[in-house]
Formats: sequence, C-alpha cells, structure tokens
Amino acid sequence: MPPEPIMDVAHLGHVELLTPKPEDSRRFFTEVMGMTESGQQGDSVFLRGWDDYERYSLQLTGAATSGLGHAAFRTRSPQALERRVAALLADGVAVARHDDSLGHGPGFRFRDPAGHLIELYHATEWYEAPPERRPALKNQPERYPARGVNLRRLDHFNTLGPDVRAAREFYQRNLGLRCTERIELDSGLETGMWLTATNKSYDMAMGREPDGIPGRLHHVTFALDSREAILQAADTFLEAGVHIENGPHKHAIQQTFFLYVYEPGGNRIELAHSGARLVLAPDWKTITWTEAERNKGQAWGLQLGESFRTHATPPSR
Amino acid sequence: MPPEPIMDVAHLGHVELLTPKPEDSRRFFTEVMGMTESGQQGDSVFLRGWDDYERYSLQLTGAATSGLGHAAFRTRSPQALERRVAALLADGVAVARHDDSLGHGPGFRFRDPAGHLIELYHATEWYEAPPERRPALKNQPERYPARGVNLRRLDHFNTLGPDVRAAREFYQRNLGLRCTERIELDSGLETGMWLTATNKSYDMAMGREPDGIPGRLHHVTFALDSREAILQAADTFLEAGVHIENGPHKHAIQQTFFLYVYEPGGNRIELAHSGARLVLAPDWKTITWTEAERNKGQAWGLQLGESFRTHATPPSR
Amino acid sequence: MPPEPIMDVAHLGHVELLTPKPEDSRRFFTEVMGMTESGQQGDSVFLRGWDDYERYSLQLTGAATSGLGHAAFRTRSPQALERRVAALLADGVAVARHDDSLGHGPGFRFRDPAGHLIELYHATEWYEAPPERRPALKNQPERYPARGVNLRRLDHFNTLGPDVRAAREFYQRNLGLRCTERIELDSGLETGMWLTATNKSYDMAMGREPDGIPGRLHHVTFALDSREAILQAADTFLEAGVHIENGPHKHAIQQTFFLYVYEPGGNRIELAHSGARLVLAPDWKTITWTEAERNKGQAWGLQLGESFRTHATPPSR
Amino acid sequence: MPPEPIMDVAHLGHVELLTPKPEDSRRFFTEVMGMTESGQQGDSVFLRGWDDYERYSLQLTGAATSGLGHAAFRTRSPQALERRVAALLADGVAVARHDDSLGHGPGFRFRDPAGHLIELYHATEWYEAPPERRPALKNQPERYPARGVNLRRLDHFNTLGPDVRAAREFYQRNLGLRCTERIELDSGLETGMWLTATNKSYDMAMGREPDGIPGRLHHVTFALDSREAILQAADTFLEAGVHIENGPHKHAIQQTFFLYVYEPGGNRIELAHSGARLVLAPDWKTITWTEAERNKGQAWGLQLGESFRTHATPPSR
Repeated sequence: MPPEPIMDVAHLGHVELLTPKPEDSRRFFTEVMGMTESGQQGDSVFLRGWDDYERYSLQLTGAATSGLGHAAFRTRSPQALERRVAALLADGVAVARHDDSLGHGPGFRFRDPAGHLIELYHATEWYEAPPERRPALKNQPERYPARGVNLRRLDHFNTLGPDVRAAREFYQRNLGLRCTERIELDSGLETGMWLTATNKSYDMAMGREPDGIPGRLHHVTFALDSREAILQAADTFLEAGVHIENGPHKHAIQQTFFLYVYEPGGNRIELAHSGARLVLAPDWKTITWTEAERNKGQAWGLQLGESFRTHATPPSR
Repeated sequence: MPPEPIMDVAHLGHVELLTPKPEDSRRFFTEVMGMTESGQQGDSVFLRGWDDYERYSLQLTGAATSGLGHAAFRTRSPQALERRVAALLADGVAVARHDDSLGHGPGFRFRDPAGHLIELYHATEWYEAPPERRPALKNQPERYPARGVNLRRLDHFNTLGPDVRAAREFYQRNLGLRCTERIELDSGLETGMWLTATNKSYDMAMGREPDGIPGRLHHVTFALDSREAILQAADTFLEAGVHIENGPHKHAIQQTFFLYVYEPGGNRIELAHSGARLVLAPDWKTITWTEAERNKGQAWGLQLGESFRTHATPPSR
Repeated sequence: MPPEPIMDVAHLGHVELLTPKPEDSRRFFTEVMGMTESGQQGDSVFLRGWDDYERYSLQLTGAATSGLGHAAFRTRSPQALERRVAALLADGVAVARHDDSLGHGPGFRFRDPAGHLIELYHATEWYEAPPERRPALKNQPERYPARGVNLRRLDHFNTLGPDVRAAREFYQRNLGLRCTERIELDSGLETGMWLTATNKSYDMAMGREPDGIPGRLHHVTFALDSREAILQAADTFLEAGVHIENGPHKHAIQQTFFLYVYEPGGNRIELAHSGARLVLAPDWKTITWTEAERNKGQAWGLQLGESFRTHATPPSR
Repeated sequence: MPPEPIMDVAHLGHVELLTPKPEDSRRFFTEVMGMTESGQQGDSVFLRGWDDYERYSLQLTGAATSGLGHAAFRTRSPQALERRVAALLADGVAVARHDDSLGHGPGFRFRDPAGHLIELYHATEWYEAPPERRPALKNQPERYPARGVNLRRLDHFNTLGPDVRAAREFYQRNLGLRCTERIELDSGLETGMWLTATNKSYDMAMGREPDGIPGRLHHVTFALDSREAILQAADTFLEAGVHIENGPHKHAIQQTFFLYVYEPGGNRIELAHSGARLVLAPDWKTITWTEAERNKGQAWGLQLGESFRTHATPPSR
C-alpha cells in the first residue's frame, strides 16, 4: 500500500502584502475590492473578504517596497501543527515561533527554499461581525457588501523561485501539500507548479524566477462568486482607473477564469472564479504540461504579455 | 487537545437510482442532463458528468419502483477503507463485502440507521475518454458536451430518516463526516442535517421521514457550472416537458442555488451551484437553525410547496 | 396596404413616484438601488440609473400616499410631439401644457382612460456627468457605480385599469404604441396588455383593476445588466432588509426575468433583465394568452402570491 | 425644426454567406452554433437562430470563395419599401427587383458604394416551427435547442470599404440608418462607422478597407443570451476545434461583449451579447472616437491581433 496522504494543513489562512503606498492600497482594497477592515497593528492594517471566516485574510503593511511579507497556512488541528513543525525541524529547516500575531495563536515561521517567509498556525479568532455588518443568513460570516467588486475570500498566492522542483518537493514533504499540475520544459526543467491542501485545485503556486532574486511574489489571488462577477469587476477597475494587466480570460492550467490588476503599491492581484472546479480525487494524478502545450497560450488563445513574465514584487533593487 | 478530525472518507463517489422506466430515465440523463453513458451491467446502465473523474457517478437500475439503490463514498486510501470498515464492525454494524462492482474495487456495504444502503470503496477506475469525447484541455476528464443542461458532476444525496439525530451521530462516529448545518425544532427534535467529507459544505443530507418508511430518498443532486447555467437548465427542462417542482431559488440553509425536477422514473433530482461557497475551516462550527428561522422560507422568501415535504422515493429492497 | 405604424413615441422617459417616506425612499434608490441624484425641485428629488441618457428617469415626490405621480414618454421629434397632442385633442382628450418641468422642455399632460396622469415631451436635457461621475468610456452617460444593485436604466411601468381593452385601444390609437402581448379570459374580458414604443417588448403594461379604484400603480421596473445581476440584487435586498415579494423567476408573458420588492414608501419595484429579448418585427403579431395558459403560473412554474394580485399603490382609502 | 428621422428600415433580416466548404459550414452552424435548417434552394441552405421570427436569418451558399453574398434589411411597411427604393433611384443607384427569394416577397437589390450587395424587402414568411421544434412558451418562435452555443438571432454584419465616410452618408441618406459611433483619425480620415435602424446600438458597421478590394466582409455577428453564454461558447469552440481569433472581451466602441471565430469556410463570425445596451434616444449624438482613444485597445485593454486587421473575406462576384 502507498503511504497515506498527509492532511495536516487545512488551508491558506492569510497573506501579508508590503506596500510603499499603504493608504492608497488600503483604499483600493476597501473601496474597489469591497473588503472590510478588521484590525490594525503597528504599520499593518488587516482586511477580510465577506466570506473569510477568520478575522482577516490580508495583512497590508507599509514598507519601503512592495512584495510578500509572509503567507500563512492554518493546520487542521493543534496536533497537526506540532507534526508539521517537527517535520520541518527534522528536515533541517529553521523555524521561529511568533506569539504576538493579531487574530491567531502561536505561529511558526520559516523560509521556503525560494526565500519566502511562510507561517503555520492553528488557533484562530473567528470573525464576529459588528451589528451593521451582520449578515441576514447566519451561515455566512459577514454581510455581502454590494460595494466595489465584492471580493469573497482569499484564494491562493503565487511566487517565483529559482528551483521550482526543489520548492515543490519541500512543500510536499514537509507540509503534505499535493501537486495537481506542473510545467516541465523539454529540457526537464520544472518551471511551474500548483499545490493544494484542499479540494480547491490549488492554494499556492510557484513559477520559475528568471532573475535569480529570492522571495519574489508573482501575485495574490482572491475569489469572486462567478465569472459574471469578474466581468463586472473589469468594468469597476476600468472606472476606478486601476491598471488591468491581463484578462478576463481562462487559464489552460487549472482552468481558472482570471483577471489581473496592479494594486496601488505595485503588487499584482488576481481575481479568480475557481469554485466550479474542485479536485475531489484524494489521489489526483499530477497533470504535467509540456513546452509545446504551454506555447498554445491560455485556454481560449490569449497570449499573456511581456509584463506577466517580468513584473514581480519586490522589484530588483 | 480535542480529538483530531477523521479524514478517511474522501468524497461521495456514486449513487444508484432505481427506476421503473429505465429507458426513459436513461434518455433523460443523457439527452436532457447531458451525461455520458460509460457502462452497462445486468439491469444497470452507468452514467457520468463531464467533470466526474471516476468511470461513473450514477448507476441507473431498472426496478419495480423508484428510489435509492445505494450510495457509495470513496475513501482517501486503502488504509482509510480498512479503518472505516473496522469502525463499523466495532460499532455493531453488519458489513458485506462486494467484489463484482463495475468500475471500482472491493466495496463494503451496510445499512445506515435510517435504512439506506451505503457503500465504502477505495480502488477505482479513472475514466478514459474515447477519442471522440477527449477534451481539449488535458486537466479535464471528458469533453464539455454542449448538450442539454451540461451536468458537470455528482454533488450530494439527500434522504429521509425517522431519527435524524441518531443517523447524524452514526455518520460522524463511523465515517468521520462533519456536520456543517442542522435543524432543531423548539421541541428539541432534530429534523435535518447536512454532512461533509470535503470542502464542499455538504456531500449528503437527511431530513425527517414523516411517514415512518425506512430508506426513502428525497433527492440526488448534480452540480452545474454557474447560476446562469441553472437558469438555462430551467428553460431546457421547460422545453423538454420535465416537471419543475421548485426553483430556481436560493436555499437559506447552505445557500445552495437550486432547481428541483422529477426524472421520468419519479426520483427528485436537484441541480445546484454549490461551488462558490466552500467550507475551509477544519473545525467549522455547526450552524443550528431554529423552527422560527425555518419558517421564514428560502433565502429570498420562496415557500417550497407541499410536494417537497411529501414526495420521496421508496427504499431499495 | 395596411396603414403604416405610427413611430412618434420614442420611449418611456421617466416616472414620478409618490412616497409618504421621501427620505427613506431616497436612501433606498441611491444606496440600495445604486442610482444617482441629479436634481431637486419642490418636494421632489430626481434620480437616474447610470445608463439613462436624460438627466433623470425617476422623480420621487413626498406625498401623503404612495402611487404614480405621472409617467412621461419622449417623442421622436418636435413634429411627432405636435402630432400626438393633436391626435389626443381630436380624440376628445383634455391636454394641459406644463412648462416648468426640471430637465425637459414643454410637456403635455393628460389622463389615460384608467385615470393615470401621462405626459408627452420632446426637448430634453442630456445628462452631463460631473468629473467624479464621468465614465471611462465616452459612449456611456455616467460611471458604473459598483454600489448596491447597480440599476442601469428605467424599463417600464405597469398600472391597473378598470377597462384594459379600452385603455389599450386608447394608447394604440393616440400614441401609436404597439401591443405585443395580452390576456383574454374565456369570458372575453381583457385582463392584461403590454405595449411598446421601441424594440423592447414592452414599455408599459396594464392589468385589470380588481377594486374599481382609478389610477393605481402596480409597479415600476428598472433594468439590470444580466440575470446574474438580478440574483446578486436579491442578496443585496436580503442584506438590506428590503421586502422581496416575488422572484427571481421568469415570467411566461414577455419572458422577463424578474424580481419584485417594495420600496420604503410602499411602491412595488421590479428589477428585470429584459434586454436579451427584442421585438424586431415591425408588424409583430400580438400574442394572446388564454385563461388556461395563465393558470399554469410563471415560466418555470412559480405561482405569484396573493399580494401580487392585491397590493397596488395608492392603497384604497 | 430639424428634419424628422426616417424610420423606414425596421431591422437587418438576413445575410448570405459564401463558403467553399458548404457541408462543413452547414455542420458548423447547426451542430456547433445550434441553428436550425429551415430551407434549401439551389446551392443554398437556409438557417435560423431560435429567436429569429422570420423563416431564416442566414443563407449559406456554396461558392468558389468565402465572403458576403448579400445582406438584406426588412422595411417597416410596404410603403416604406417603396419610399426607400424611390430614394435610391433618385440618388442614381441601380436597383434590381428579385421575385424568387425563398421566404420573403419582392426584394430590391443594389450595391453600396463599397461594393456590397444589399437588399430591401418587406413581405416575409414567419417561421412556423414543426411539432418537434415547437416551444413551450408561445411568445417564442422556436424551441431553445440546448445544443452547441445556442445562437439566439442574427445581430449585425461588418464590412470593409475604401471610403467609409461616403458609405456612411449613403446609408444615412438612402436608408435612414442612424450613426451611433464612428472613428475619425487625426488626419480627418473616417476609418469606422456603426449604423442602426433599431434600438440596438448597431445593425451594421464598416471599417476601412486597407487593400482597395471592393465588397469584402469583415464579419457577421449573432447574438447570444448573456455574457456567461459567450464564455460557455468559448469552451464549446475550444472542444470543437474551432479557431478562436479574439475574445471573449469587451469592445470599447459600442461596449459589445464579443468572441470572434472562423467558420470552416473562412468567414469570421462574431458572437456578441449586445442586448443589455440599448440606444433609446431618437436623436442620439454620434460618438466620435479619436486616434489616441483607439490606440488604448479594447475596453479592458486587449489589443486585437494582426489578423483582425488583415483577414477579411472576398466579395461576391
């Protein structure tokens, strides 16, 4: 019998975005994206989509540059958290405990092989909506905002790394994430991988870093309700003067219906409708895309422009 | 520390529907629902939605009456299957091994406390599309049919039971299913419960059997891509002369966008768009609906008619 | 050769709604419906959807009761206005000239046979968006609001009259409106009619007044972009505590996808997606629905509740 | 007073497409597009969308090359037909009467200044659905097919001409079409124009012919029900191996949500959702787009590729 899957990581909990324009970024995420502010601490403001059950899913931190502060996964149980920390330590990874995070219990932070700061935690604060944000249906954390693009919840994050294969094996080995799709060039070089902890077909992804810079972020993705909502969002961005980089269109890989924009701090943000497609198979067979298949462009033929390959945050310094 | 969640059941794999009009039912599921036929055995024909990864998700069996033949859950691993069978036996449940099922390995069958025949299995046959049904994107099991309502995949089944609370506890204890929502009347009587094995907010549900008949089926539900697809389906049903019982509308419980029809054999079939809402919390706190809340009707005020409370299809024998 | 169609009325321009709760109604139409305020005069505030090209499409007037103040059609030309006024006078209708209307030139007002105050005008003020409401695309009158239900434009109004047939013939004879659909009971009584001046399948409608009260309003309808937008609106209404009376569902007559709510002043408001269906035939053959056909309910089987037949504004006094 | 608008042309009735692969084209329009065959005559097969009220909207003619055979407008009345023919003759245009057209009465054909063959007619055959194609709702010409992309109706055609301004003035002067939008380069050269006879914002369009070839077709456009239906169509085309040239995306001009493909005969076909936006103003002020505005690309930033400027199908001879 094959070894059993590790089910210790429950889902992506939140990401921290750095921004050199914190006030503009905050306004973008509340007014245009329709998020709710749910906390403040130091240089950070905390934000949430109306269907995020935890206190927040986005930490926005004023900084000298844009980029990914950290990304945090919630484990399925306290025991699962202990097991994953033990596995990381056994793998020779330096892990640091953080006790002062807003909204959740002890976090254990480490760098992935590509240089990104990743956190694991379990204990968390469930969002309690104040009266004016209380929803009509009690199985929903917060009122539907009817404002901006009505961002629903955090979906995934996508980074760049110099050695995608090593990073993938690191996440599979230590966190138990499962690889649903990947890209392998004719040379055997792995240039992209998509990992999941859930029935969503991915919760994180990584592409190949072209410039050897550690820890860069490609984008953070939030989920909307429907493809129609993403088309409406495109109009909302157009009216708000937000730069639309690509889309709406459908990725061939993962079949995500996507729209990419830049938030005022320079980070690329994706809106996606990924809900219709679920990976239910517990033993899903990784799909490997070849160089020739990748050259066909996106599902309906769109070729993503140059900036999609070159723009990542933080910028080279 | 609380006990860890049991993650042994991966997802609902297939349901067997009995029909006194097998040929009409087969035509309904292929031509109107857009399913593909993928096998035949004895009195059964096997069908699948274009996004079901296993060989089939629906077994349609000619019989004297309509009703649920059985429902089958796939476990996460062979070990998980062994554990669940052992747990059932330890709980005093009679379990029978079946080795001759089309499309999957050994299945272990038992009756739930409400009299329904349930099966657990792990080994399964992945669907291999013949050339003419091969999809353009290789991360998809089968070509999008562009026919009828374009049913995507099996979603859940909903039965009736005389003691909903006992049945819920049975599934929680023996299969590790998690209860996301339930109904409890002012008298303390539990009249509905929704259980999940996945990040979908439910994979099975049970309401209270009003007439003391064991093993009745309320409905089987299939997923469509979007709410717009469900509106289109309503028109397709209207044109095909299919009886629409309720909807399209949105349930308050689980917030499912739904449409109920009767297939020619008399079984109630629901089309749902459940993908947008996911339960990511590993420790989701069960939502309990009160009698007063239930009396408000569905999310936007619809009152389901009398037949929704009285029509159910008889037990397998 | 048959007589040529009269093309003098271009479209419905605006409606005036009376409300005993002017401030609540104003807040409803701006915050929940997403309209823009574009003027004030006496007890009236003037509002518009983002795709209404004229200064306003809704005049909201504080009054002792709810109800229809008046409804105004814009003619295709000044000459067309003269011809219609002359036709009305020749038909023995009393017509009064109004010169002081906000936003448009001379209006000619008269009562239709059912007692509603109707106005014809041609000269009009095109909406000029202030800088902060200026759209990104210059072929659009105003910025898409991304607020509330994002009401697009006025669509039609629906009244009650004691003699529907007489009212229909009045509008056909004097205004040149074309009847696309109507209801005739087995007794020969006409109980509903839908008239158009455009390629929309109706711009006004009238049902049979059950209580002999003159001039009652059944509802005013605004258009949204898509059926999905109407489903989103249902959630927005649910969250805002707005009473949803019926829908979302699809009418059999005219096939309109509809949602009915009550605004705070008590007037019934319909949101509709009527854009997909156009009547292009210049000689469209009126569809007459029989009593038996009407008894089937709406397109997908919904039976509209009692209030739909009894609630109309102003209420009986 | 300004002159009154000419309302003699009611709408675009049908287009004739030439195809060197008549059988492949026929299969494409029936199986992939979901049209119904409603007649045959000589080398032509006649097809219709389920909401076209006339017998057909597309004549498909086997020929040596692809291209536009002719395009036909239906007038509002017999008198209107006489007036338009008289106007053309008075303008020095050669007009030829055709009496043998399938499905409609006498047609009057002429060349527009760009060399396209245009027809005017009034008498027409309303489609009578055979029993198996009869719709559930009698205000609809034909059953919703639930097949392929479920094409609803003909929308418009778009040609190329060496002198766009002259062509526009010809259609305005002789047919009374109204210009809703146009493109004028900094040099004063008119390079695009959109004309309407209805409340749709255009029924025909013309771009500048780059190669001096008379009578070329850029594309023929059919309407679908919703933007979601167009996204579904993109998947259907992907699965059917149909070449997608551009989209789905939103045009800045006219704000049409579009998808361009090539049918097997080589003609470019557009699917559009144009129904949500209506031009109701009888005196709509033509929007003129500048060179700088055009360089911004489509509404959400897409740059149409080279083939969109170079691929066009040859003239009828």
